[in-house]
Amino acid sequence: MSASTALLTDRYELTMLDAALRDGTADRHCVFELFARRLSGGRRFGVVAGTGRLLSLLREFRFGEDELRFLRDEHVVSAETVRYLESYRFGGTVTGYREGELYFPGSPILTIEGSFADAVILETLALSVMNHDAAVATAAARMSIAAGDRPLAEMGSRRAAEQSAVAAARAAYIAGFGATSNLEAGRQWGIPTMGTAAHSWTLLHDTEEDAFRSQIAALGSGTTLLVDTYDIRRGVERAVAVAGTGLGGVRIDSGDLPIVAAEVRAQLDALGATETRITVTSDLDEYAIAALAASPVDAYGVGTSVVTGSGYPTAGMVYKLVARQDASGGWVAVAKKAEGKGSQGGRKRAFRRLEDDVARDEYVEIADGFEELPTAADVEGGRMLQVTLVDHGAFDAAHEGPEGVQAARAHHLAVREELPVRALALSKSDPAIPTVFADAGDR
Amino acid sequence: MSASTALLTDRYELTMLDAALRDGTADRHCVFELFARRLSGGRRFGVVAGTGRLLSLLREFRFGEDELRFLRDEHVVSAETVRYLESYRFGGTVTGYREGELYFPGSPILTIEGSFADAVILETLALSVMNHDAAVATAAARMSIAAGDRPLAEMGSRRAAEQSAVAAARAAYIAGFGATSNLEAGRQWGIPTMGTAAHSWTLLHDTEEDAFRSQIAALGSGTTLLVDTYDIRRGVERAVAVAGTGLGGVRIDSGDLPIVAAEVRAQLDALGATETRITVTSDLDEYAIAALAASPVDAYGVGTSVVTGSGYPTAGMVYKLVARQDASGGWVAVAKKAEGKGSQGGRKRAFRRLEDDVARDEYVEIADGFEELPTAADVEGGRMLQVTLVDHGAFDAAHEGPEGVQAARAHHLAVREELPVRALALSKSDPAIPTVFADAGDR
Repeated sequence: MSASTALLTDRYELTMLDAALRDGTADRHCVFELFARRLSGGRRFGVVAGTGRLLSLLREFRFGEDELRFLRDEHVVSAETVRYLESYRFGGTVTGYREGELYFPGSPILTIEGSFADAVILETLALSVMNHDAAVATAAARMSIAAGDRPLAEMGSRRAAEQSAVAAARAAYIAGFGATSNLEAGRQWGIPTMGTAAHSWTLLHDTEEDAFRSQIAALGSGTTLLVDTYDIRRGVERAVAVAGTGLGGVRIDSGDLPIVAAEVRAQLDALGATETRITVTSDLDEYAIAALAASPVDAYGVGTSVVTGSGYPTAGMVYKLVARQDASGGWVAVAKKAEGKGSQGGRKRAFRRLEDDVARDEYVEIADGFEELPTAADVEGGRMLQVTLVDHGAFDAAHEGPEGVQAARAHHLAVREELPVRALALSKSDPAIPTVFADAGDR
Repeated sequence: MSASTALLTDRYELTMLDAALRDGTADRHCVFELFARRLSGGRRFGVVAGTGRLLSLLREFRFGEDELRFLRDEHVVSAETVRYLESYRFGGTVTGYREGELYFPGSPILTIEGSFADAVILETLALSVMNHDAAVATAAARMSIAAGDRPLAEMGSRRAAEQSAVAAARAAYIAGFGATSNLEAGRQWGIPTMGTAAHSWTLLHDTEEDAFRSQIAALGSGTTLLVDTYDIRRGVERAVAVAGTGLGGVRIDSGDLPIVAAEVRAQLDALGATETRITVTSDLDEYAIAALAASPVDAYGVGTSVVTGSGYPTAGMVYKLVARQDASGGWVAVAKKAEGKGSQGGRKRAFRRLEDDVARDEYVEIADGFEELPTAADVEGGRMLQVTLVDHGAFDAAHEGPEGVQAARAHHLAVREELPVRALALSKSDPAIPTVFADAGDR
């Protein structure tokens, strides 16, 4: 794998750059915006995620020898453009929602300002990161709300491509999960890791007792034993026989969970293992978690559904040119008019307007030309949503690395408290709050 | 990003290894199998993909200083296990279906033989790669069948996490797509790349004519112009006015495609641009492609649906211990009995049995103990499906890199010809051929 991220890019971005360098438009100052036209799957809110990853990838967005050789040999761009790319460093400005923030249709999640050359070639990388991570985080937030105070662990690495699995663990943690099974996510992003044992562990041993005894010898009786390899009732019996009533937990990975959980709880209590916790892990999603709210379950492990966005594996965000300077230096708001895919041209500033600490709307002011965009003082009850992430090529490192992840998680859990109650339901619906666009010239 | 792939692993694999090193079972010779219990989404066949990627990642599965420090500092495993991992190199044997091969429920797609220690820690990496790539390849094959002779390009990078996008481009190409927009897939895997232009290209310019003129100056009149930024009819008119009747193609990315394609074809013909090709790219999946079969469309660009497996983003494969040696060295077939998640224990050899060159069934012989597994000569009309990929730690490089991709694509297109006609329909169904298990002892 190349360390450069510069070719994680669609070919047309470089051929457009090539043509723009020829016709002189490459220097035109441009504003691109990354936003979602709608919330996938009738979700009531979206969760911004990926920002910290994107910033680090953007630092590595440099064309090295391998990348340039490929572009030259394949005649993707001209020799002049290859020379231009040799020294390419992103020199523009990125403002955007904090990672972990909520978003709604039309929220200006990221705004990339710079020359056309600066900004056009980031389209695919920015969308790849944000679309994936937001899809996972949005699903994860719904699961986290459904789980209430019960701990949730992400265990879906095997159902996501190997590097996406790390990103998914990170996104789920930002949106309220407490831990992941993925070790690389622990190493790279500082996310707490957890694990129990697989069925192969039991099958490796001559008897289920042998497997349990060995696991306890290695990990202590506070460990969680997987009890459904053969017969759950016998498994629970053996687990307590081997570990004693101080057994930390049992894991159930099959069967009709509300029924099985109740049976296992009763059995554990009857055996005196009243403090032994029950973890369930079989094909859970937000709906299954909600359906288990009244069951004696102590923790959830979620796999496939969280890493695949619970039916919506991509957030559907787009990256569009919304304003540019013309030949005389004036600002022009621009927008595609295509059927069903229109967008809102112009530079934007976004606020979440609150009333009694509850979110009322997403208020977005638009400047078509040179109008001044509002500051916090101009919008009553409005929390300003955009912060500067990269200032003329200078990165704000606070958003990156494990510290960025912790900050994003804290921000997410805080702003989720602002949501109106109707936002917490799981059924398909309109967005929980409306997006209100206003003309900055009218203020 | 670390170059090591060793922590793309669930924590429990290393804690099981730790406990197995303590209790002496780490050396037990084991057979693990990677297979699918069923085909996701009522698909009629699955396409194996990811094998060549997995082999390369397996070569890098080594615990370096960073990885070992993490495991030590986080107390994931004991100091003895850290020492064991320092020199870990996969020393086992992997046999499996060729990449690009078809699979059915219970097909032994990969078989990993070695000590428990060797094999247990590969579970997550193997599943991550194969589940993702097979999901994409299976969806892509359906689209490729629906498209018939019309060229198909993969353009979904922006709707997949940045590294998954590269893997998805590779999987789609193996399953019959002709090109990708993803440049890294071109560089890394030798896949043909293609591209047109974005709406931002038109919006960057003062007029649509300016944008078209500049693109033609850079890429020649054989290029494909995007005609739906403002009004499609005007766009087509301008495109031919600027490029002449020798214009290579127009791209349509919005609207009701069967209607719009017919209108654009009529307009192009009336303008004399009878050879100008029409590419459509708006939210296509296998069903939309099939519905356009009678429309005057020359090429398809597919995004979201192919990289997300068209509704089924993971193939649902599992990695299970199926046989092991006991303390006295005898082979024991093992299988989990859990409700709805049972598996078929024992070592296996698989054949596709053909009649008049048409696949009739997936024939799998199982050895519970020391029975001999069949060779090609033993199964009449049977094509043996498993090949050796890694032999006692020695990798067969023919499956890796760009050459491996070309071989996988050729193999896929060849074996697809063996499918019965009913396999080519898109609706949900049972698998196109049954999987027949037989006991090797009965032969």
